[in-house]
Amino acid sequence: MKVWGLCFIGFGNVGQGLARILVREEENLFSHFGFRFKTIAVVTKSKGSRVDPNGLSLSKLLDEINHDQILGPCTITPEETVCLPEVDIVIDVTPTNLKSGEPGLSVTKKALQRGRHVVTSNKGPASLALKDLLKIASEHKSKYRFEGTVLSGTPAINLARESMAGCHITEVQGIVNGTTNYILTRMEEGLEYDDALKEAQALGYAEANPEGDVDGWDAAVKVQIIASVFMGKYISLKDISRVGISGLKRKDIEKALSQNERIKLVAKIVQNSGQIFASVAPVSLPFSHPLSGVNGATNAITLTTDNLKDVTIIGPGAGREETGQALLSDIISIVTH
Amino acid sequence: MKVWGLCFIGFGNVGQGLARILVREEENLFSHFGFRFKTIAVVTKSKGSRVDPNGLSLSKLLDEINHDQILGPCTITPEETVCLPEVDIVIDVTPTNLKSGEPGLSVTKKALQRGRHVVTSNKGPASLALKDLLKIASEHKSKYRFEGTVLSGTPAINLARESMAGCHITEVQGIVNGTTNYILTRMEEGLEYDDALKEAQALGYAEANPEGDVDGWDAAVKVQIIASVFMGKYISLKDISRVGISGLKRKDIEKALSQNERIKLVAKIVQNSGQIFASVAPVSLPFSHPLSGVNGATNAITLTTDNLKDVTIIGPGAGREETGQALLSDIISIVTH
Repeated sequence: MKVWGLCFIGFGNVGQGLARILVREEENLFSHFGFRFKTIAVVTKSKGSRVDPNGLSLSKLLDEINHDQILGPCTITPEETVCLPEVDIVIDVTPTNLKSGEPGLSVTKKALQRGRHVVTSNKGPASLALKDLLKIASEHKSKYRFEGTVLSGTPAINLARESMAGCHITEVQGIVNGTTNYILTRMEEGLEYDDALKEAQALGYAEANPEGDVDGWDAAVKVQIIASVFMGKYISLKDISRVGISGLKRKDIEKALSQNERIKLVAKIVQNSGQIFASVAPVSLPFSHPLSGVNGATNAITLTTDNLKDVTIIGPGAGREETGQALLSDIISIVTH
Repeated sequence: MKVWGLCFIGFGNVGQGLARILVREEENLFSHFGFRFKTIAVVTKSKGSRVDPNGLSLSKLLDEINHDQILGPCTITPEETVCLPEVDIVIDVTPTNLKSGEPGLSVTKKALQRGRHVVTSNKGPASLALKDLLKIASEHKSKYRFEGTVLSGTPAINLARESMAGCHITEVQGIVNGTTNYILTRMEEGLEYDDALKEAQALGYAEANPEGDVDGWDAAVKVQIIASVFMGKYISLKDISRVGISGLKRKDIEKALSQNERIKLVAKIVQNSGQIFASVAPVSLPFSHPLSGVNGATNAITLTTDNLKDVTIIGPGAGREETGQALLSDIISIVTH
């Protein structure tokens, strides 16, 4: 019976979320999917690292991290770690860096080149180098999986890839950024933009420098990933028409509501005669539109296909365990195929 | 390279829908999933049968059926057909019979016993004998897949099984019958129940004897299938509390609307301390509920799980090609695992 060797590169909120699910579900994962695992290494930047080819205890690691303990001295680089012979699946949960993709990009390349599978929620490598990474994976019979980069925990890539296998996707519309959707929902409830943003920052949804969310960069990166995975088209960020929500006033929101519409930051990709038109922009959607009722930090995506006209999935757009669940579904997909 | 031998038992709307997709997507299915197929046999009750171990032309068959031609004399029974050595996957698209499960049940059992995989949209065998069929399949290393029995083409089973693998489902709420949802939508638009039903019958959504839909039997069967697949609980139809929509008046619908609610026929399953509570009943849902905005012949299901709180999928609830797409996703799942 194969015992799959796991290696965490990074161990922040998402990594810990996955680790908690793995601890809680260990027996169920075996009985349902025949999946047995050993945690070979956890490598972090600020909390040290620990490696044991015989397997580490994830619950002990979680406990130590919760008590702010350092895991151990970093005697081995991330690139060396993923090459350990016991490692089968690398979990890249390093922070997203949209400029360089590092440190995730180098680790991911090295792992795939050595035939290790990689699962990730890190949007940097997927945004900057998806075509390359998939090519390397294909050449080395490894798999690169990144469900957690699009709708956090809510399945989008695996929905299209597996559950809707055989459909051609011609159009995608989505609410793919929970922070801006939370701000827009609070503006509907009476706040002005600045106050809604401050509240989102206080709740940890928005960062101190909120541009990545409110100017539509995060949504644009997701558009990039969606276009490549769903439609096989690799587009760069500058080819995506992008308007954020920071110019919206409460009176715009109210005007839409008075016309039975809601303003949403909509990521949209249309494929027409082999050409791709991609945009992120505030759009006023009638109440009857399935995306119009998606409120708060929830995400949703509507896939228009040939065999199934419109399929919409709505689910959590953020959260530690939710994104951990996306990584788990990728791991199970690798293990069972 | 494996060429998968297919065998259609029945060749009505859904079977023809799948056949059209297979013809149209043949090259894409090969390039995306490495899936090559040969159609070994098509066996029907009223249009005759045709068998060729070297492979039949599906487009020619579709053309003949469209011109009301008889395929050929039935020299071989469905049970004999599925045992032909060239057959790998049996497509059971015989009509649903909730009393005996026949003719689908016997064919399905025989096929699984002989190690053939079965994909189906026929709710009869799944309602009457799912536990048995899955046991037979497991004993003979064959697979029994029935995505098309729940939300027609919209993925529900494969969403939970693959895309949300690792989640425990604790509660399911759904709009799982397109006919009743169409009638309720038309009543909101001003029709009385009897007129909305007549319209649904004229459009082919409702049958001449509409009890299966309007009294909630169809929804109850789907509740059965959902409980068994999602929660591992096999319940009989009599254990499902069931109220249909035939007692609803337009004034009930209007009253709900005046309170910002919509009446929907909701299938619900709650798991609590290992016990299952299952029901089908009209429920008044506030506009903010994700199922409230699901109109017309659309289906939807909300899965409440441990790792992902609420995930809702909304999509087409009927249609030939849509249900054919569900069968195709099951075939691809078998072929790629």
